[in-house]
Amino acid sequence: MKQAIIDFVNSTTDPPSPSFVFREDRIAVFDQDGTLWVEHPMYTQVIYCLERVPTVVAERPGLKNVEPFKTVLCGDQEAMAKLSMRDLEKILAATLSGMSVEDFSAEAKKWLETAKHPRWNRAYTELAYQPMLELLLYLRHNEYKTYIVTGGGQDFVRVYAQPVYGIPPEQVVGTAGGTKYGYGKDRKPFLTKEPKLILNDNNAGKPEAIHLMIGRRPYAAFGNSTGDREMLEWTGAGAGARLKMLLLHDDATREYAYGPAQGLPDTKVGTFTPALYDEAKKNGWTVISMKNDWKRVFTFEK
Amino acid sequence: MKQAIIDFVNSTTDPPSPSFVFREDRIAVFDQDGTLWVEHPMYTQVIYCLERVPTVVAERPGLKNVEPFKTVLCGDQEAMAKLSMRDLEKILAATLSGMSVEDFSAEAKKWLETAKHPRWNRAYTELAYQPMLELLLYLRHNEYKTYIVTGGGQDFVRVYAQPVYGIPPEQVVGTAGGTKYGYGKDRKPFLTKEPKLILNDNNAGKPEAIHLMIGRRPYAAFGNSTGDREMLEWTGAGAGARLKMLLLHDDATREYAYGPAQGLPDTKVGTFTPALYDEAKKNGWTVISMKNDWKRVFTFEK
Repeated sequence: MKQAIIDFVNSTTDPPSPSFVFREDRIAVFDQDGTLWVEHPMYTQVIYCLERVPTVVAERPGLKNVEPFKTVLCGDQEAMAKLSMRDLEKILAATLSGMSVEDFSAEAKKWLETAKHPRWNRAYTELAYQPMLELLLYLRHNEYKTYIVTGGGQDFVRVYAQPVYGIPPEQVVGTAGGTKYGYGKDRKPFLTKEPKLILNDNNAGKPEAIHLMIGRRPYAAFGNSTGDREMLEWTGAGAGARLKMLLLHDDATREYAYGPAQGLPDTKVGTFTPALYDEAKKNGWTVISMKNDWKRVFTFEK
Repeated sequence: MKQAIIDFVNSTTDPPSPSFVFREDRIAVFDQDGTLWVEHPMYTQVIYCLERVPTVVAERPGLKNVEPFKTVLCGDQEAMAKLSMRDLEKILAATLSGMSVEDFSAEAKKWLETAKHPRWNRAYTELAYQPMLELLLYLRHNEYKTYIVTGGGQDFVRVYAQPVYGIPPEQVVGTAGGTKYGYGKDRKPFLTKEPKLILNDNNAGKPEAIHLMIGRRPYAAFGNSTGDREMLEWTGAGAGARLKMLLLHDDATREYAYGPAQGLPDTKVGTFTPALYDEAKKNGWTVISMKNDWKRVFTFEK
């Protein structure tokens, strides 16, 4: 795995190489949840939204007895685990819109400073994968511009992408809602987050968003789930050397084990299907085994 | 005008200055048509679209006797000048969608290599303003990241932004349609340009697109028309030193004269209203007079 990365970087940055890529064209894209940091038992942003429900209901008491807000307010973990995708979308829309973009960032930042992952009892931002942080640095050292291309909320990830990954806001591409320009007191302009979806940055939405936000095809793409398939395909369909890698979560001891590829337990969060595994093998994409390929998973490990 | 720029740059890049801005936060945004290059008598992209109508009609003969395509095919300049915004939108949708993103770029590039502006008989790409090219270089030299934020088509401007302005595709924000991911022969993936509008990068759409695409507030903004008002307001509403500039086209001899601000002739292309002029004066935005402030307009001038 490490050798595949080094070979790719050497072949694209060494001027006499037939696969040489000009500095300005060196684009590498990374999925975030499950690729750069932990996504189990649930995406961090969904936890943020669920924990924000009481605040939203306090502001809009009409939601108190309306599902799915009622279930979330009860705090019944079993009932919450059964919420449908449609229910989750309602919760996301209610908790991620209606405020100014600055208020949203300030609240998300505050939450991230205190919220802890239930298993490690550490801040979510400490749960970035050490080998991926090294990879980001190595690629940037070789003048690759590193982007996050996430199904998660663009505004949410932008809050911590710089301190955690060294990736500035403009290099975070994610699922995004619209904003609305308006004026407050003293005619001071502000942008309000709207519930209208502009980019659904999953599956085919990933290459579409890459075109919109970056405008050129990446040379390297990293993912871990079926939602990253099209991004890797799109990257691989370009001419010359292109690096495509998928992280397989097969390490229940140090992190989590889920697939259902390779007989791993099935999951709705970061699904890696056997079909994706077969496509990877067929197309020469590298599948990284967390268990076998990573000496260390987290920075805080000894 | 020159001094205002130098003062701004010094105050935001000199570490002991109270207005010092960290390198990574230095964002400068430029409207394109009428700010970086000539937009009269008509936006270059609209001319491209009009000239592309015969090709589109050859592919879709059903459009031959349908307005506004019929008028464009006749080549009646007077009738074409009277086309409504709705008619132009139909032409834009028909000529800017339906092809792969690569085919579109290749066609636009080819057109730009041969098309000539009627007044100067020079390529449109030679009609970038020399003082603005210098300004882009000066800002970048001071580690400002320069962006185009244009009402023009994002994919169109990205074709030439790098060679003309030194601005890479990912730093071009513009009016953008959706794309659709699909597969051709051999399951090779491609993106098709769709007629669906995702970003209308004019007026309030400019700060909205800046939030989506860049994710932070610019420190400097340059425009020339009423469509840039909100972008300058949004820039100016940030804390610290912020540079806001509008170019007034008051030089019929060397370029064009239009407003209707300051008693200049009225126009539908790049309108600079008296209300915008008043807002500029009230808020301390600098109005650049092409006639008085620019020694040279174009690079090809002696």
